[in-house]
Amino acid sequence: MVNNIIKYDHDNIFYAQSGGATAVINATACGVIETAKKYGYKVYAGKNGIVGAIVEDLIDTSRESDTDIFNLRYTPGSVFGSCRYKLSESFNKEYENIIKVFRAHRIGYFFYNGGGDSQDTTYKISRVCKDKGYKLICIGIPKTIDNDLFMTDTCPGFGSVAKFIATAVREIECDVRSMASSSTKVFVLEVMGRNAGWIAAAAGLARSNKNIAPHIILFPEILYDEKRFLSLVRYNVQNYGYCITVVAEGVKYGEGYFENQISDAFGHKQLGGIAHIISNTIKNNLGYKCRWAIADYLQRSARHIASKTDVDQAYALGKATIDYALKGINDVMMVINRIQDTPYTWNIGYTNLENVINRERKLPLHFISRNGFHISQKCKKYLSPLIMGEDFPPFVNGLPYTVQLKNILVSKKLKL
Amino acid sequence: MVNNIIKYDHDNIFYAQSGGATAVINATACGVIETAKKYGYKVYAGKNGIVGAIVEDLIDTSRESDTDIFNLRYTPGSVFGSCRYKLSESFNKEYENIIKVFRAHRIGYFFYNGGGDSQDTTYKISRVCKDKGYKLICIGIPKTIDNDLFMTDTCPGFGSVAKFIATAVREIECDVRSMASSSTKVFVLEVMGRNAGWIAAAAGLARSNKNIAPHIILFPEILYDEKRFLSLVRYNVQNYGYCITVVAEGVKYGEGYFENQISDAFGHKQLGGIAHIISNTIKNNLGYKCRWAIADYLQRSARHIASKTDVDQAYALGKATIDYALKGINDVMMVINRIQDTPYTWNIGYTNLENVINRERKLPLHFISRNGFHISQKCKKYLSPLIMGEDFPPFVNGLPYTVQLKNILVSKKLKL
Repeated sequence: MVNNIIKYDHDNIFYAQSGGATAVINATACGVIETAKKYGYKVYAGKNGIVGAIVEDLIDTSRESDTDIFNLRYTPGSVFGSCRYKLSESFNKEYENIIKVFRAHRIGYFFYNGGGDSQDTTYKISRVCKDKGYKLICIGIPKTIDNDLFMTDTCPGFGSVAKFIATAVREIECDVRSMASSSTKVFVLEVMGRNAGWIAAAAGLARSNKNIAPHIILFPEILYDEKRFLSLVRYNVQNYGYCITVVAEGVKYGEGYFENQISDAFGHKQLGGIAHIISNTIKNNLGYKCRWAIADYLQRSARHIASKTDVDQAYALGKATIDYALKGINDVMMVINRIQDTPYTWNIGYTNLENVINRERKLPLHFISRNGFHISQKCKKYLSPLIMGEDFPPFVNGLPYTVQLKNILVSKKLKL
Repeated sequence: MVNNIIKYDHDNIFYAQSGGATAVINATACGVIETAKKYGYKVYAGKNGIVGAIVEDLIDTSRESDTDIFNLRYTPGSVFGSCRYKLSESFNKEYENIIKVFRAHRIGYFFYNGGGDSQDTTYKISRVCKDKGYKLICIGIPKTIDNDLFMTDTCPGFGSVAKFIATAVREIECDVRSMASSSTKVFVLEVMGRNAGWIAAAAGLARSNKNIAPHIILFPEILYDEKRFLSLVRYNVQNYGYCITVVAEGVKYGEGYFENQISDAFGHKQLGGIAHIISNTIKNNLGYKCRWAIADYLQRSARHIASKTDVDQAYALGKATIDYALKGINDVMMVINRIQDTPYTWNIGYTNLENVINRERKLPLHFISRNGFHISQKCKKYLSPLIMGEDFPPFVNGLPYTVQLKNILVSKKLKL
């Protein structure tokens, strides 16, 4: 394969992490860095995503020990710092800076690791560099717990959140089942998912022929109908003694959200707190004792119970990014292809960036059960392999070991 | 040891689980049942705690397979059903029923597994039986995530919550550290702890020479001082870039709680939701982007990351209860004795029930750092061994295996 490598004058690699952190994005970083090193390429990591390229904050990953790079596999969060930063639609000073920085540091490869907004960034950088005649291989690497990217079977980070949430529901069911006769009868667990109900759907994996929970799932894709919901809660309590509801933070009620919240740089509302509202609705209307939890970052940083499938895919994407880039593949996002469901087999491919930007893959309606409150068998078949396997981190003093890199910046060559 | 056993005419065992479920209470059940079986004793489990004794709902544990009993070690919740049920201060119909049921089923041993309120139940049963001339060995077995029982080094269930919460803080720090430059700067994690800050304190274990979080802990033992708190949040964000606060649900503000909530059978207020209030206070006063999570039952049912020390102690308490009871030890609660800190060694002993009832062990003030916002070295020394070791459950289809017993009731002999 090394024979096929296209050599550039500018052959350093820029890699950065963008958007919300996940439990496995550093496994991708590990795959990128270890593979690049094998081929003799230098990886400069952007400090805080694309911002690092704009302000010439480049981390020299060759200053880290092999052991620390290896342990990235076990470390949640984005070790090089992430950002929520939207580049302008038209050429401006920021793009000018980026090209200057890349030229100064002989960057020939741009690998951007993130969700939908980050693929948009990759696409913009690619377009601008073409326009300005700066030769750059641009590849997006998927990552998002939201699982809402098109063209890839799944998005790294999602499988581990799915495993954490399904585990939590399984465990909470054991607890609530114990208490229901004289105490808590209803439990509401709020999970992430602004527009797409993938994480809420993953909770459905906890149901088996032995386990009922979750009894109800509220998806952002289905308009919330309080009357039908409450009647289903009552039905479950009357028939099973208890009821566990999983609600996506983005569940919709009529025209708006449950709460008005602040927005981030991309105009996304910051949600959270819906579990409390749902719980009060149940208490007030049905009189059941209710408890509720809001998983928030607990779910997306839970590396201790990551899916091995997810970790393996995250690493493989990083590795394949180098392999493909060195073959000259350009303007693509790497993807995971599902070859078969059982046993789950997959490989890594790629798709043109145009196929993924400005699109959001919602839960297809046939993945939702007919009554709108659970997942379908098709959904279960899709989701099941993604949570398979455990990849426990090493534990030190009873706690998961996480690595912190030295993150030494390359000397600045520019006055920006 | 079998030679020393005092034989009673009535030699069946009644065992029941009471109060909030934990990740390891079934490990105690496992210890009781496996050990009793070894000595040839029958264990009847109360369905839903003491309620099972009042209404003659007795589960015949001999109908379960050895494998299912063994797998109790891995199953959170209370498999026989729990209750929050307060017995009357004076003799009444309920006590009359209990004695009738015990006599009818030849119960000679009463083992009640729970927290402070459950020890009170054990004590009352013992007193009433003595008064009425019914010979019964009464032993309380500790269990409470609140860690607020006197005379025992720790309470089964607590070590596993401690491990889960400290792990969560460690992982959330990785996440927030990544995002702080352009997004979330402050994270608030709400943990259980109505009056005693043991769980909040356990979060402090996540801090190490490499890891800062939690930056701030808000204990129920320390009156909340908004001005000092906000100034410390600002200090941490300015100096470290981010700030992670762990807040006990029972943190106190002036004379009352943050919120008025409903009360349970023992008059305890049901709390929860304080993280949202704290988070809004930070946003409104300091303008930092804030996220928050409420762990609630996630923390107490998280068997997947239980502390091995905790599981071992829970099992050992169950086993020792049988060993001591068969020697005629009576009217005691079993306790864990700490022999030394490093390496942590412990054994099982007992204390008179009078020493534990109607008392609540709060976090001692010397376990809180001088500024009131973190734990002291002494506290760390006490807590550290309790989260040691992992005892991962078996995983099936990517999820932790939990057992559900058949819970077959013994034929009723009475018309109550």
